[in-house]
Amino acid sequence: MTTKTILAIDPGFERLGIAILERSIDGKHIIIYSECFKTSAKISFAERLVLIGEKVESIIKKHKPSALSIEKLYLANNQKTVMNVSEARGVVLYVAKKYKLNIFEYSPPQIKVAVTGYGKADKGMVMDMVRKLVKIDIKVKSDDELDAIAIGLTMLACER
Amino acid sequence: MTTKTILAIDPGFERLGIAILERSIDGKHIIIYSECFKTSAKISFAERLVLIGEKVESIIKKHKPSALSIEKLYLANNQKTVMNVSEARGVVLYVAKKYKLNIFEYSPPQIKVAVTGYGKADKGMVMDMVRKLVKIDIKVKSDDELDAIAIGLTMLACER
Repeated sequence: MTTKTILAIDPGFERLGIAILERSIDGKHIIIYSECFKTSAKISFAERLVLIGEKVESIIKKHKPSALSIEKLYLANNQKTVMNVSEARGVVLYVAKKYKLNIFEYSPPQIKVAVTGYGKADKGMVMDMVRKLVKIDIKVKSDDELDAIAIGLTMLACER
Repeated sequence: MTTKTILAIDPGFERLGIAILERSIDGKHIIIYSECFKTSAKISFAERLVLIGEKVESIIKKHKPSALSIEKLYLANNQKTVMNVSEARGVVLYVAKKYKLNIFEYSPPQIKVAVTGYGKADKGMVMDMVRKLVKIDIKVKSDDELDAIAIGLTMLACER
């Protein structure tokens, strides 16, 4: 695995968790950047998709990651939400692949196992381990950012 | 309704129904173009999304539609398919909105009512009416193209 800089995304249309991670020489992972990108319900859904795609594009242009690590969606009760999150996820995949990133997808249990060693870990356990595993040089503000970091860590653990 | 040229899309990732329709001076609708755009399962899903997005972009650049008419997805049994179709649909919305198209979305019953006058019309009735309603100057080959035309006709009927 030669990838050094990776883009990690927790997909969503209201809140998109974004992180840029790097594997450092001593094996400790560094977060270069993380953000919870929000879009407003006051604009149309298609306009929100445009903002999401343009955001991902600007981050790829700035940080030049060679791979995208993104969460696979799980079955959920609210099918309308699943469809909208999938639409946003499709835009992320589209923009990433246009920029030739290699794409890695992980399910929630895979992410839990990679980060905590336990596939049924709760959210708090995942968040705690994320804080221990990475040098958090920047102030991480939201769960969405920590989720994105967890997804990035999963790829760094799985693809060596 | 000042729109003259519209892009109509039957969303999908294996087969994307595409049509360009125009309202002619005598009120009869003309199909400028229709196509069933297929992507191969031999390439990655993200690569298929790129082909879909680039196809939609090339058609917008060529025909310069002012609006997109696209089918809303319905609840379905196969959630995996719904997610993948939604991802492709998100890419279509993203590209269309980047090019400033107005977006109109219709559910399957709305399309059936607009085309046949009957919300529970079967596929054959819809296809028959589509053939009667439009001047089919070009050879329409597939159901996906006829579906896209039906979606375009719905917008022309609803947005005057």
